[in-house]
Amino acid sequence: MIVVIGGGPAGRLGAMHLAQAGEEVWLVEQRSIGGQCLHERCMTICALNDVARLIESARTQQGLGILDSVPAVSYPAIRKRICEVQEKLSSVLDAETRRAGVEVIYGAEGRLEGSRVFIGDEEVRADAVIAATGSRPAIPDIPGTDLAGVYTYRTLPAMPDLPRRMAVIGGGVVAAEFAHIFHAFGVEVVIIARHGLLRDLDPKMRSAALRDLAGIGVREETPVAGIEGGGRVRSVLLAGGEELEADAVLLATGLVPNSGMLQGLDKHPDGAVVVDARMRTSVPGVYAAGDVIGPPYLTPAARREGVVAAENILGRETVMDYEGIPQAMSLRYDYAFAATGDGDGGVTLSAPAPAGPGSFWDVAGGWAGLAQVRVDPATGRLIGASAAVPGASILLSYIGYLMKRGITVDDFDEIVEVHPSTDGVYGLARYAAGMLKKKNE
Amino acid sequence: MIVVIGGGPAGRLGAMHLAQAGEEVWLVEQRSIGGQCLHERCMTICALNDVARLIESARTQQGLGILDSVPAVSYPAIRKRICEVQEKLSSVLDAETRRAGVEVIYGAEGRLEGSRVFIGDEEVRADAVIAATGSRPAIPDIPGTDLAGVYTYRTLPAMPDLPRRMAVIGGGVVAAEFAHIFHAFGVEVVIIARHGLLRDLDPKMRSAALRDLAGIGVREETPVAGIEGGGRVRSVLLAGGEELEADAVLLATGLVPNSGMLQGLDKHPDGAVVVDARMRTSVPGVYAAGDVIGPPYLTPAARREGVVAAENILGRETVMDYEGIPQAMSLRYDYAFAATGDGDGGVTLSAPAPAGPGSFWDVAGGWAGLAQVRVDPATGRLIGASAAVPGASILLSYIGYLMKRGITVDDFDEIVEVHPSTDGVYGLARYAAGMLKKKNE
Repeated sequence: MIVVIGGGPAGRLGAMHLAQAGEEVWLVEQRSIGGQCLHERCMTICALNDVARLIESARTQQGLGILDSVPAVSYPAIRKRICEVQEKLSSVLDAETRRAGVEVIYGAEGRLEGSRVFIGDEEVRADAVIAATGSRPAIPDIPGTDLAGVYTYRTLPAMPDLPRRMAVIGGGVVAAEFAHIFHAFGVEVVIIARHGLLRDLDPKMRSAALRDLAGIGVREETPVAGIEGGGRVRSVLLAGGEELEADAVLLATGLVPNSGMLQGLDKHPDGAVVVDARMRTSVPGVYAAGDVIGPPYLTPAARREGVVAAENILGRETVMDYEGIPQAMSLRYDYAFAATGDGDGGVTLSAPAPAGPGSFWDVAGGWAGLAQVRVDPATGRLIGASAAVPGASILLSYIGYLMKRGITVDDFDEIVEVHPSTDGVYGLARYAAGMLKKKNE
Repeated sequence: MIVVIGGGPAGRLGAMHLAQAGEEVWLVEQRSIGGQCLHERCMTICALNDVARLIESARTQQGLGILDSVPAVSYPAIRKRICEVQEKLSSVLDAETRRAGVEVIYGAEGRLEGSRVFIGDEEVRADAVIAATGSRPAIPDIPGTDLAGVYTYRTLPAMPDLPRRMAVIGGGVVAAEFAHIFHAFGVEVVIIARHGLLRDLDPKMRSAALRDLAGIGVREETPVAGIEGGGRVRSVLLAGGEELEADAVLLATGLVPNSGMLQGLDKHPDGAVVVDARMRTSVPGVYAAGDVIGPPYLTPAARREGVVAAENILGRETVMDYEGIPQAMSLRYDYAFAATGDGDGGVTLSAPAPAGPGSFWDVAGGWAGLAQVRVDPATGRLIGASAAVPGASILLSYIGYLMKRGITVDDFDEIVEVHPSTDGVYGLARYAAGMLKKKNE
């Protein structure tokens, strides 16, 4: 019998993979299946952003005189409805998991002490274990993080209604995504980033993102000294002494692996369980997968890690490959990025994206997104691509695969677009092919 | 010197291709560049549908209590703004075309009399010609089509405001697309189809489409005897004798090639210019491309035909390949379809699509779209795919290409999704791979 601890993407996919191969599998989940991905992160952001994008598009169209008004948001209703949809999706996942043959055990904590496995207080004998206990928000070491009105993505569902002013502490994708959403909902938002905001992004994609974040206050290179208030948050105190008033604070300062219940195995200083490329921990028979092994903290990576662990438990030597996993961010448009190899070198081309479904009316404001490609001029191979357009996530998912398979810009000649399309990668690749042809003539 | 008649997708792409190869090219365009694609069809539907989808999403979210209201549409403003954006896009196309080295001649009609070429009244000497004069709406042979209030997609921009009741005559994609849009705008719409509505669609995809058309009256197997009214349309008279009141009628009864100005070359009975796979007409040195050669009347096909004509003029033998050109339709979701080979045989799998950007809140109503795959069980090759989800067009464009390249369902193991994604094809392909594996064990 195999025990999987945690029903998020890594644990659930690993468990299903094992059960489908005929193994007896117990999946231990304290809450409801689906993990943070379903309950607090990916799907929550998707839900909120579907409303935010509607409001932003309505504002654009109202500005053009096309619509007579912009609807107002009822945040309490969103809270309630998100939970309902998440429960629905969770029950779909539960049914799918059981149908695959997995025994799902809810409400108990799974724990490890070396190779000893506990479900609640009871020790069980397992032939193998996958520990997929996920992560939790990192709380910065500053005073005031326990005040009422201070949230993480994890406690945000408890926020009763929209604040007037929100401070988002953090400079990464999650900070940007939530800031964008609450700003669209009419909240006065300021982002406070210790270093830069989205500084890992390529400069042009970052500029595109900053367009989407227009109207939001941005403080970069700004450490926070503390959060002030008597019981309830009143302001954020910056290290320089300045105080920014806020009715709510969202801490978007990263994640830490959730490994307290996993004892007796090697961990990194941040608590991430040490694994090899086959997801084996330092304890024989114990595997780990998903956020608990550390970055990249992405659902598709977690799913794969779970399946890799399962494959190795089944005796099929499989290693985890992180190449070509596209990164994404959801602001007004989808942002997605993929690269192959080391992602360096080559020639980069950028262009405004063509107008298409979801971006037509933005053309009136002179902006329908951005696309970029990186091409190796010696071989014509596409080695990097990114896009900030509606639909970029689906696009880059397939572009990422084609890059792994060695697609050249000439090969795009055989791709037929559906018209109109927001796919600016296609046009750039075709353009690059023409340039290379000319150069070689 | 080479003359290209018509600045739509076929003519423009052909002209640019020739100019980029160093040829002297004159592109003759009576109106503004971009063709019907930009001015009346693809982009107009995209523009209207971006508003329609916003209103439908707002209705869904209002129904859930998330939004307090649904904005109302000002149709006169849409009309005005569409033209402005189209002018903007047209000037982008104009600049791009000239930058490629094409001489664009506006305001004159290009004509052919066999191999003789006329621009307005003046005959010019050309080494080769591409005739890309497009198509126009077919007008059914019934009384009343000249009444005020009767439109085609071509004259629709003249409709001053929304009617209370609109009858859409036709049963194809364009009829469905416009019916969906005007219904979303609050018009009482009835579709009157001589045969079936969307009867070429696979039954499950058709059911999905009919969901998107809920609330629209649908009369199938219903020939129209005439359109009634004194000066202005008042009603549509059905062949059975019934009269349906309508303040506006939209004729969506197909297209006819626009070949009156092309004399002295072989044509099909419907006026379509006869061409071979190299786009050569019956007159040496005269090529034709785009809607003027008949179906499929799709922008991506027209573009390709223009480039194929250009390639052959340049002495590079190239034939037109219609395989894998994805078909699409825009209703509440994108609908897109692609198949390889003859598209027959194989095993078909369907499943509800996963919820993702653009469809999250539809889950509350129990529907987030549909995906289908057709797989050859002997080889595992994906031979057909379709999807009705946000983003289906981009998805099927790449799936279409991968199918041409022989992708198997096993290969999907290497594709990494961006999560969350509305891509249901991926999940079905993975599921099919698992099924085939089990079968072969």
